[in-house]
Parts: sequence; structure tokens; C-alpha cells
Amino acid sequence: MAAYFDAASAAPLHPVARQALLAALDEGWADPARLYREGRRARLLLDAARETVAEMVGCRADELVFTPSGTRSVHEGVAGALAGRRRVGRHMVVSAVEHSSVLHATTAENGGEVTEVGTDRAGRVGAEEFGAALRADTALACLQSANHEVGTVQPVAEVAELCRAAGVPLLVDAAQSLGWGPAPDGWSLLAASAHKWGGPAGVGLLAVRKGTRYSVRGPADERESGRAPGFENLPAIVAAAASLRAVRAEAAAEGARLSVLVERIRRRVPELVPDVEVVGDAVRRLPHIVTFSCLYVDGESLLHELDRAGFSVSSGSSCTSSTLTPSHVLKAMGVLSEGNVRVSLPPGTEAADVDRFLDVLPGIVRSVRERLGAPTPASAPTGNGGDEPALVVDSLGKRCPIPVIELAKVIGDVPVGAIVSVLSDDEAARLDIPAWCAMREQEYVAEHPAPRGSAYWVRRLG
Amino acid sequence: MAAYFDAASAAPLHPVARQALLAALDEGWADPARLYREGRRARLLLDAARETVAEMVGCRADELVFTPSGTRSVHEGVAGALAGRRRVGRHMVVSAVEHSSVLHATTAENGGEVTEVGTDRAGRVGAEEFGAALRADTALACLQSANHEVGTVQPVAEVAELCRAAGVPLLVDAAQSLGWGPAPDGWSLLAASAHKWGGPAGVGLLAVRKGTRYSVRGPADERESGRAPGFENLPAIVAAAASLRAVRAEAAAEGARLSVLVERIRRRVPELVPDVEVVGDAVRRLPHIVTFSCLYVDGESLLHELDRAGFSVSSGSSCTSSTLTPSHVLKAMGVLSEGNVRVSLPPGTEAADVDRFLDVLPGIVRSVRERLGAPTPASAPTGNGGDEPALVVDSLGKRCPIPVIELAKVIGDVPVGAIVSVLSDDEAARLDIPAWCAMREQEYVAEHPAPRGSAYWVRRLG
Repeated sequence: MAAYFDAASAAPLHPVARQALLAALDEGWADPARLYREGRRARLLLDAARETVAEMVGCRADELVFTPSGTRSVHEGVAGALAGRRRVGRHMVVSAVEHSSVLHATTAENGGEVTEVGTDRAGRVGAEEFGAALRADTALACLQSANHEVGTVQPVAEVAELCRAAGVPLLVDAAQSLGWGPAPDGWSLLAASAHKWGGPAGVGLLAVRKGTRYSVRGPADERESGRAPGFENLPAIVAAAASLRAVRAEAAAEGARLSVLVERIRRRVPELVPDVEVVGDAVRRLPHIVTFSCLYVDGESLLHELDRAGFSVSSGSSCTSSTLTPSHVLKAMGVLSEGNVRVSLPPGTEAADVDRFLDVLPGIVRSVRERLGAPTPASAPTGNGGDEPALVVDSLGKRCPIPVIELAKVIGDVPVGAIVSVLSDDEAARLDIPAWCAMREQEYVAEHPAPRGSAYWVRRLG
Repeated sequence: MAAYFDAASAAPLHPVARQALLAALDEGWADPARLYREGRRARLLLDAARETVAEMVGCRADELVFTPSGTRSVHEGVAGALAGRRRVGRHMVVSAVEHSSVLHATTAENGGEVTEVGTDRAGRVGAEEFGAALRADTALACLQSANHEVGTVQPVAEVAELCRAAGVPLLVDAAQSLGWGPAPDGWSLLAASAHKWGGPAGVGLLAVRKGTRYSVRGPADERESGRAPGFENLPAIVAAAASLRAVRAEAAAEGARLSVLVERIRRRVPELVPDVEVVGDAVRRLPHIVTFSCLYVDGESLLHELDRAGFSVSSGSSCTSSTLTPSHVLKAMGVLSEGNVRVSLPPGTEAADVDRFLDVLPGIVRSVRERLGAPTPASAPTGNGGDEPALVVDSLGKRCPIPVIELAKVIGDVPVGAIVSVLSDDEAARLDIPAWCAMREQEYVAEHPAPRGSAYWVRRLG
């Protein structure tokens, strides 16, 4: 039986959302701007949905508009906030692990300068470091409530307090967390997306606190207080509101239950599978997300084999992205990106499905490693190292995880203290060779430019 | 029993759309960008919907993207086409009767100069005049396939040919007509909206012909060829495609049937109601839209009374708009805007409902007129006119249709050839006083600036 473990991409439609959608298709298809009966009925539904969602967000109904998606909420929120603070400046502060919609929105701002604040190895932003990045000409700060790839919860309340003190508005991307509870107080703008909490596609939220300077860009339109042009996606908005209320009613119990299942995965995977790194904060995390990376495995094969075994998961490995670069989140965290798997459990996930996943995973990882010719432990030769490579591995033209596999195969061939140089033009190597060194307790020496790609120097320590 | 006559705002959901939506909620909720089974299934649905709609539009599937609404299609189409022609210039040519989304999109372009091409009294653009407005620095031309307020069909093929000759891309807003058939060939960009053809809310179309220069503005995003950011509104897209196919299969027969009903309204309303002007082209029109204006009536009361009688219609009268200005379409046509009613019949409208509408309309118009104290015909006094007003009517602070009613009441008090001056600060008077003169065969002399508002001079002819 198949199990869908990718709720962080899109949660299956909640039964309450389905019911509400059906009812609203009959009652809410007309234009809510019209004054005749069908229009008034649609307006009542729209107003009621806004009241419900505003209550769940923790804002006033007139601070909240519905957009077509979380991505559009972020794009428009960033643009509107920047336009509203035009006179202050165009500098922005964002965490390096924001969703791509935030990073794309901020880099799309012509002439805007963006400071990216890094994270620790668990993907958590330091509030102090974030605060220190705020400047007199900072127009906007953006921080997610929790990370979409590794589940780490961010210090929103602390950062909000620093932003408030600096007079900088804070946009919080609450897409991953809003189904579990409201974001901490202190945000100026908040964005979210209904299909993450079991609502239908086509509905995003954008809340703008009263008093936040905000200026709509783009063509004028009368819908949604002028902040989200176009005919309202009404039946879907009604369904989104109903399902948000429903998942919130279940959030405490279901969150506790899923958190136990996630904890089981966090604990068991490193026991069952050799050479695995579980990434993300073990404690300050969302209840339903866990991510790990498997050495000597390519993410694409792993996803394919897991899909064949009936498990739908996603990956931040480079080989699974259209750009062939590893996830910017894993990169910012400085963790292994190869063989990366994100498991995000939808509400209602059975413990038996998680156990079945833990049953099949070790065999799948093993078979992928065998196919790729991954190394097995070898005894160490003795001898003295030097300051020049004792051995050069040419991995040019080969993709993740091959360069790391080739390094691992030969490291035992050089004496302890000697250097192996890996030539690679694969973007993932820059992240994965140091990560392998950390996992294997070898010394990562340096990256040197090479005629093609780079030479990554690794000193054998044991 | 209630009858909904406002299909041009939003058509009720087609039964096929409802069925398709239900099926797609189960099969198409996952992220179509993912490679696991649920994602592949969603991708198949999205691809199939795109193929279907592309066939109905008359384009290739890879020329077509789905957006969240017709308004967004227009906004993004205009922005993308202009950005693609940055080097040519920023001049645009549009008809004066385009949908507000087009006019707002073009006027929102900083530094862009817009030439508005007028229409005849039937709301039809002259192709020659449109062609003459094209310049060497014209980046984009926009022409609707048919007008949304009066149903007049525009000469798209002729204008497209002139645009082609001038090397100017043409954006066709096909929102009102796509359910009835494809737009004439020759467009470079085409926009439409699913809820106009019985699809759900939340789905717009934007087609961009291969070879059209187009440059996406705003933040990068991988969805929909980079042209429409955000998670696809998938179940709704599937429903939109299914209903477009279904309404097209019925379009010829249903169009002919509704056209007869519209013809009945066009013919009977002036017979049943005194002082009515039916507006829009009598022949070159959409099958389901008819619009008329009633002298000495305010649109809001008329809509309210029709709603009480069970008829949902819309109006371009100033008193029904949030800005208290008459519809820019009626203004461009130079026709009466007071007491304006647009009837747009959804597919399946019964002849009996139209007959019932014709039954109740005369009594409703009469009662509104009585309440407003509208004039009844009077015999004409004799005498000579002059070049200065023989009588001044102070209608300052009074709204449409009061200034026209006050004019009509006193015109019989001055001799034939004499001038009545109406002082009014209501925007609608500028349109309605000349329109009244045309209907009553009086001479509209001129508008003169006054300390407040304007003085409208009317010479009694008979």
C-alpha cells in the first residue's frame, strides 16, 4: 500500500475542505461585488471565510486578503512592503534558508541590496546575528516561521522584537506552520498557503498589520482591498477556511502523535542505515518533518526506488533539482546534500506506514550504493603525509554522489596524514566533500581552483 | 422564481465542470512538479487540461499557461509583452471600451503612453482608426474580441492584419467570447477567464504565440514556463478545461437559441418601456448580451427592484459603481448611462424567464420614475429663443438621473429656440444630458465651466 509522505509540498485535501468546497460551489460561484442575491450570498461566504481565517492567523479581518497562492502572497507582500518604505531605503534582510519564493522576490527588486543571514548546522537562524544585519536603510526583513525542508523552527518572536526596536517591518512566511498554530506575535506581514494545511490549491493568505506601510504595485483593481487583483477564487477560499479551522482543532493531538513518529524516524534511520546524517533541529522543529542524507547515494535513485516501494517523499539533492544544484537550505546549513530525503507526514499518517518505511529504507539504500560501487570500510595503511596531494582523483564530468564515492574508495590507499585531491566540476561536491569529511572525521583542507571545476583537498586522519 | 441574467460577470458552474472538479480533487491535489506517483498523476491531468484548452483556443499547448484569473492574465500579458518590446518603445494602442483590467494594466506602465481608440455609438472600434494609431514606437496593441458591457463584437481580424503589417503584437482579451468560439486568427497574446464559460473561479488563460517577444517580469518561478508563479490551481484547471469543451460542443445551438431571446429583448423593451435606448451593435454582437438605458431612472433603484422581482442583472450606471462615475464603455459610446441594465443570459436560460422579465420591467421602470418625479410629455409653448439661457436649473449636489429629470421637466416652459442651462456637478450629467438631447431631438449646445460643476446648455427645438 502506498504512503504519501510529502505533506510539506502539498497536503491531501482535508475531508472538511471537500465538503465545504462542494457546498460553496452551489452557493458561492457568483461575483461577490454584485448586489443581487447570488452576489450577496457569495459576499457573505467570503466575509465569513475571512473572519475564520483572520481568527486563526491572529489578525483583524480587514488586515487579511486572499491571494492565488503562497508564492503570490510572498511576491506581493515583499513588493508592497518595499514600495511602502521607498523613502527609507531598499536594503533587505532575509535568512539564507527562506523558501525560494522569498529569495526570488527579494532578488527581483531592482537595486535592492539583500543581506542573507546564515544558520547553524541545524538550519536555525541566530536572532542576534539577524538583528545585527538590520540597518538604517533596511526596508524589510523576512523570516520563515519554520523551515520547509528540514522543519527547524525559527526564532520569530526574538527577531520580531529586534525588528520592532529597529523600526523595520518583518514579513513572516508561515506556510509550513500555520496549520499547527498561529505564528508568534510581532510580524508586520504574514504569508501562507492553504494547500499546505489540507485546503485546496489556489488560495494564499497575505496579512498586513494596520500601521505597516504598504503600497500596492501593479495595475489598480478593486478586489481584496486592492491588494490581490482578479475575481476571488471563492469556493476554494471557503474550503480553505473550513479546513484551517478543522486542522487547528486537531493540531495539538495530531502534532503530538506525528512528532512521535518523526522522532522514531530520527532515531531509527541512523541505526538502520550506515553513513546517514539526520539534519535539522532535533527539538525546535515542526511535528511532521524529518530530513536525512545518505552518503554514497544519489537522491534521484533513492526517490525512484522509494516511489516503487510505495513511498512518496521529496529531496534536496542536486540530482533531483532542475538546476542540478543542491538545495540552498542544505547548502546554508553546510550539511551533506547527497542521498537527501525529506519525509513530511500528513495528518492521519499511520504508525504502521512509518514502520514499513523503516523496513524498506535500509535495503533500498544498500542496493543504490551497490549499484554505484560505493566503498566499504578498509584497513588503514601507515606512512607520513605531506603538504601536496599524494593522490589525485579525476571525477570531472561525474555527478553527485560519484565524486564522494571515488574519494571514499581511495582515502584508504594513502598514508594517514597524506592528502587526496578530488577534481570535480559538480556543484554538489563543494558541499558534500566537506560534509563527508565531517562525518568520516577526515580533514577537509581546502578548495583550489582548477582548469575545470575545483580541486578539493582532503587529509587522511585515520 | 429567480432568474440569473448576469453570465457576463460569472456564469453558474457547468455540471461538467462540477464533475471534473470532484474527480480532480481526488486525483490532482499533489504537486505536479514532483516525480512520485501522486505528482505524476497531477502532471498528467495538468498536461491533458492544457492540451484540451489549447485546442479550444487554437494554439499549441506550449504557448498556453494557466493563471489565477482573467485579470491576472491581462496584467501579466501586458507587462510581459511590453518588457519584451522594451527597445521598440513604450507606446500602446487600446480601444476605449476595453475591460478595466486592460486599461488599468496599460495605465500602470510607468512612462508608457497610451492611445485610446474610440468607437461608434454601437461600441464598435473602427479598424482603420485603430490601424492609424499604430506608430513606430508602439510596443503593444490591445483589442477585446467582444465588449463585456454591450456585447458588440470587435473587428479583431482586420485589426490583427493591420498590427501584423505594422509589426506590432496584438493582445486579444477574449474573456467574453471564448466559450462561444475561438478568437479570429492573428493575435499575438490572448487572455481569458474560466468562470465566464462555466468553469470555476481561480483559472485564467494566457496564450503567447511562438515568436512573440515576451519577457517575464517579477520574481523568478519555475511553474507554468515561468509565466505564472505559484502552485497550479489544479483541480480547478481540470474543471475549466472540461467545461470549455462542453460549452463549445453546445455553443452553436445554444448561441442561436439565446440570440433569439436577446433579439426579443432588443425589440420588445422599447415597445414596452417609453424613453429607452437599447445600446450596442444589433447584428455584430455576442449571442447572450443585451444592454439598454432608461431615461429618468437611476440604475441602483432599477437593479434593486429587479432583484426583488427575482432578476439578477448588472448596470453601467454611475450610481451603481463605487466611484460614482458612469461606465467608461457607455461614456466612450456616447450613449445614455442612466437607468442602464445589462442582461447576459447564461446557457440554458428559459424563454419563459425572459418573458417574465419583459412582463415585470415596464412596471418597475414606471414606479421608479414616479418615485423620482420624472416628467410626462407636455404641450410646447411658443416664442423665440436667444443665445443666452432663458432658464437656469440648479441641480448642484443632485445625482443621476435627477439633473436630466429636472431638465426634462422645464424644457417645455421655455419657448422653442430658447436655451435651458442645467448646473450640475454630477459626472454622469456630462454623458446623459447630450444623450437625452439626442433621444428627445433637442439641441445640445455646450458645456460651460461653472463655479461648481458645469453648466450644460440645451436649446429647445420642439
